[in-house]
Amino acid sequence: MFEALLGNGLILKKIIEAIKELVSEVNLEVTSEGLSIQAMDASHVALVVLSLRAEQFEEYRCDRPQTLGVSIGNLAKLMKIAGNDDSITLRAEDDANILTLTFTGKNNERVSEFNLNLLTLDSEHLGIPEQDYSAVMKMSSAEFSRICRELTQITDTLNLAVDKEAAKFAVSGDIGAGSITMRPNDSDKAEEKMFLRATEPVSMAFALRYLNLFNKAASLSDEVTLSMSPEVPIVLQFGFDLGELKYFLAPKIAEEA
Amino acid sequence: MFEALLGNGLILKKIIEAIKELVSEVNLEVTSEGLSIQAMDASHVALVVLSLRAEQFEEYRCDRPQTLGVSIGNLAKLMKIAGNDDSITLRAEDDANILTLTFTGKNNERVSEFNLNLLTLDSEHLGIPEQDYSAVMKMSSAEFSRICRELTQITDTLNLAVDKEAAKFAVSGDIGAGSITMRPNDSDKAEEKMFLRATEPVSMAFALRYLNLFNKAASLSDEVTLSMSPEVPIVLQFGFDLGELKYFLAPKIAEEA
Amino acid sequence: MFEALLGNGLILKKIIEAIKELVSEVNLEVTSEGLSIQAMDASHVALVVLSLRAEQFEEYRCDRPQTLGVSIGNLAKLMKIAGNDDSITLRAEDDANILTLTFTGKNNERVSEFNLNLLTLDSEHLGIPEQDYSAVMKMSSAEFSRICRELTQITDTLNLAVDKEAAKFAVSGDIGAGSITMRPNDSDKAEEKMFLRATEPVSMAFALRYLNLFNKAASLSDEVTLSMSPEVPIVLQFGFDLGELKYFLAPKIAEEA
Repeated sequence: MFEALLGNGLILKKIIEAIKELVSEVNLEVTSEGLSIQAMDASHVALVVLSLRAEQFEEYRCDRPQTLGVSIGNLAKLMKIAGNDDSITLRAEDDANILTLTFTGKNNERVSEFNLNLLTLDSEHLGIPEQDYSAVMKMSSAEFSRICRELTQITDTLNLAVDKEAAKFAVSGDIGAGSITMRPNDSDKAEEKMFLRATEPVSMAFALRYLNLFNKAASLSDEVTLSMSPEVPIVLQFGFDLGELKYFLAPKIAEEA
Repeated sequence: MFEALLGNGLILKKIIEAIKELVSEVNLEVTSEGLSIQAMDASHVALVVLSLRAEQFEEYRCDRPQTLGVSIGNLAKLMKIAGNDDSITLRAEDDANILTLTFTGKNNERVSEFNLNLLTLDSEHLGIPEQDYSAVMKMSSAEFSRICRELTQITDTLNLAVDKEAAKFAVSGDIGAGSITMRPNDSDKAEEKMFLRATEPVSMAFALRYLNLFNKAASLSDEVTLSMSPEVPIVLQFGFDLGELKYFLAPKIAEEA
Repeated sequence: MFEALLGNGLILKKIIEAIKELVSEVNLEVTSEGLSIQAMDASHVALVVLSLRAEQFEEYRCDRPQTLGVSIGNLAKLMKIAGNDDSITLRAEDDANILTLTFTGKNNERVSEFNLNLLTLDSEHLGIPEQDYSAVMKMSSAEFSRICRELTQITDTLNLAVDKEAAKFAVSGDIGAGSITMRPNDSDKAEEKMFLRATEPVSMAFALRYLNLFNKAASLSDEVTLSMSPEVPIVLQFGFDLGELKYFLAPKIAEEA
């Protein structure tokens, strides 16, 4: 028996919205530690890693670890039925073939219960090695999101170069070329503030299309942390009370860029 | 001569918006009592009944009853020209072939006058018997609207079951099944509040597509009243100062549901 | 060397948005007096005239007059990268083939630099004679915009008749006909206020499609001034601190109207 009650159901709605265009069918791993998802996108370029900690739920019970295969699109449709103020309970019997979602209004005036048919999916759990990154920057998720979105108008590839002085977002397309340079600063305005630490300069190219998909998670966290080392995937991390959502994206190799 | 002046023209704009996707050409019946419309949708599954009371208009004059055939789509286009703060005057000579609309700004700084060509339409006035309904519920129109809209993602048929304890909105589709249960309560929050009276349990199935069309009227009234009896059409009633807008929808028979 | 710094970059973003659907490739004329554009739309019915005064820029330098051919669509894409609070610098070397745009955040925390490839375009500078107009009206740009937009639902031609008493916006289409009459007044409400001066009555027909395109400039100025004389193009003028944007539109001849 797995059962988890989340008082602030809105966060779960936002999480599902943040991954539904990237992955379609995923295994939800539930253990006594918490709930997690690890899934690659269809083209195996991006990896989504979600971790929600058991102790952050209002109630959490998991008698034994289970793998629940769900269609994220269908889960998103059911989640939309929950009101933004509703609490959400997830429940599955052992060896279940349905996941039961219960949405409860603040004053119990409205209780919704839906059963989502579960799927049997291949498991492809990857060991992701802990790693010290050469460069780590933290900035406003809304601002990073805006930058990526606007640069997409010029080209499909972002060249991201970070050293200890600044981060440089460069693009080059038919209409012209250019870059946005951001320097670390401690501004009072959240959208300007930026933290940067680099032990060596790093410069890599990424597909803007994926970054734009990752940026749906800006609704979950005001800040995004980007971690980079040469020739390994960049990590975008969005943290929130309940846990964190991380996206890994392999760099484009030079010939592609 | 028919002439009616409405100080709050916005309400007339909203009424036309609330019916224009359901009915295309309708007869506007004007009498000394007021103005009314009764029209079935093209597939003869839903009936729209609008009644506006003469005494609620700032000025109202109707020398003799008239039937004015109008294209709701064209009327909506003209209505959009009226500012939200404008007063609206409707005017038709006896045996008119045009309906004249006058939109007047609060300080007479702008006066618009448009003539809408009238149509000759078959009349299909139905006698709707007054009826005591087995179950009547009243709830937030915005919340009912949201529920119907989100459930549409799962399937096209809503099973609505009401008894004296609760109202249950159930759906079943490929992706799963479930229901929303609402209990009568006297919450301070308008979107939670719900009134329910049932002399016998009633359970029927309805096409969500139509309910979604009816819910355009949520802009007219904060509350919607649903009246049900076994095997007769459900009634959704939206009341407002000027009168009321009612929608009748035949239940789906079991084989269809 | 041409270099111009504008503290309020947002206004430049709005200007480009206001003309980009009307003209695609234009010559930017820069002189010590300021920056100007004069361009006809593809069908040679409308003329756009932009004038920005050198002294209204925070910094302005133009060593010798230059003609910079730009794709407005591409310039718009680059402009979107600028934050709404950014300052914008335009820079071109003498005989340049690129225009450099620099966007700087309020606290220098973000600096973006983009090079736009310049084009060699035919020049078609028209002498526009100064003219005394028979009728001049000034009104809310938002209200004029709304009127044109809603009337477009009825037909594609606006008949604009102005005398010293009133301005009349008349349309006639399949669904009916009518007009909006506005009288000069000194209302406190900006959207109602209207100024009118006419030495002789003027009545002409215009394509609503163009007026709707011009009205994108309503974001630049709360007021629009319309100047009309019989059989010459109407002028819509939007003024702002930095300069002005004018649109000329030839009247439709009677057979067309």
